[in-house]
Amino acid sequence: MDMDRIVSRLRAFTSERDWDQFHDPKNLAMLLASEAGELTGLLRWVGNAEADAFVRSPEHRAEVEAEVADVAIALLLFCDRAGIELWRAVEAKIEKNAEKYPAELSRGHARTPRR
Amino acid sequence: MDMDRIVSRLRAFTSERDWDQFHDPKNLAMLLASEAGELTGLLRWVGNAEADAFVRSPEHRAEVEAEVADVAIALLLFCDRAGIELWRAVEAKIEKNAEKYPAELSRGHARTPRR
Amino acid sequence: MDMDRIVSRLRAFTSERDWDQFHDPKNLAMLLASEAGELTGLLRWVGNAEADAFVRSPEHRAEVEAEVADVAIALLLFCDRAGIELWRAVEAKIEKNAEKYPAELSRGHARTPRR
Amino acid sequence: MDMDRIVSRLRAFTSERDWDQFHDPKNLAMLLASEAGELTGLLRWVGNAEADAFVRSPEHRAEVEAEVADVAIALLLFCDRAGIELWRAVEAKIEKNAEKYPAELSRGHARTPRR
Repeated sequence: MDMDRIVSRLRAFTSERDWDQFHDPKNLAMLLASEAGELTGLLRWVGNAEADAFVRSPEHRAEVEAEVADVAIALLLFCDRAGIELWRAVEAKIEKNAEKYPAELSRGHARTPRR
Repeated sequence: MDMDRIVSRLRAFTSERDWDQFHDPKNLAMLLASEAGELTGLLRWVGNAEADAFVRSPEHRAEVEAEVADVAIALLLFCDRAGIELWRAVEAKIEKNAEKYPAELSRGHARTPRR
Repeated sequence: MDMDRIVSRLRAFTSERDWDQFHDPKNLAMLLASEAGELTGLLRWVGNAEADAFVRSPEHRAEVEAEVADVAIALLLFCDRAGIELWRAVEAKIEKNAEKYPAELSRGHARTPRR
Repeated sequence: MDMDRIVSRLRAFTSERDWDQFHDPKNLAMLLASEAGELTGLLRWVGNAEADAFVRSPEHRAEVEAEVADVAIALLLFCDRAGIELWRAVEAKIEKNAEKYPAELSRGHARTPRR
């Protein structure tokens, strides 16, 4: 199952329900924000030190995966509607981040280096 | 460029900067929420009727793509850290959504059908 | 009922449940993001033109008020924990916004004026 | 400076710039989500154990207060537009939370009690 096949399924799903009318980029950005909020909600009371175990625990795994999937679906719907090639956009961003955060100036801290 | 290659690049990027220490699932959920917030911020004053043109306009396209990419990077980092196979999780969620929103009961509105 | 009385009630509520241990600023920022996400979720499929009627409709009013209240509670818990005087901070921000967006340069559009 | 005076200032600010046209509840929910995302962004790489010191540090205090103020402004604009009495809504929510999370069943954990 790769991304193109997933996107095809999402298109069929949306079209069968006549939901394209709701899926403009503004509404899909809100969908994405609300789904990201739900994933954030799952982890809000979990400490940093327990977070890895939490997301892998049998008790919470299914819920975490479902929220992650909701975020991904919102992101794919947005890209499909806006005509964005996701991996190309990601690759371009990684290049920019590599310039913004040179390895030798960024090691072990998350501040933007001043040069 | 497919997802596996992107994830490999993200791993190298993170490891070269010794950033794995920051990338527990809690922090990455916060990264995702803040990046989703930035995409939402771009579209907050854009009306529904103008949203398609906005995201495709030369003036705003690069910024929209950059924010979409940031959301995708956060999502991929989260999945990689948590050991989630993203497309498998998405496919499972689409199945669930198909049960929750049967096409014939969901056409043209976004309410969860009561049966 | 003013803000000080509300904050006193929230302190008592938190303390009776021994929840102060969860309420560090990081966790409360996540609470705020997840509650803001829920309010956003309520309005994601509502068009701009219908949004005023939606939030005032008997059908949705209680839910909108409950989500707004959740956001406010998260914000008050954050300020109380961090020792922030909310209205003083808001007033300072309004001053800054007035400088950033001079009325005569900002009328009818939401772009930051370049001077 | 109390809330009513702040709301009056926000009304004047909005009206002087002819921004009421942008401030429907949908757009204001997006404003709120994006501002909550910015506060979340500030704390994403800060560990739970360092979060209290971070938000009180001279280095980060002004930025934290500014983000908190932005969230509050978005919330007040939303309530003003929707005609929501914020403290009344908050008080009602605290009552509901007290029923949902009885002190004796909720002590020291954040799960919803099953009764």
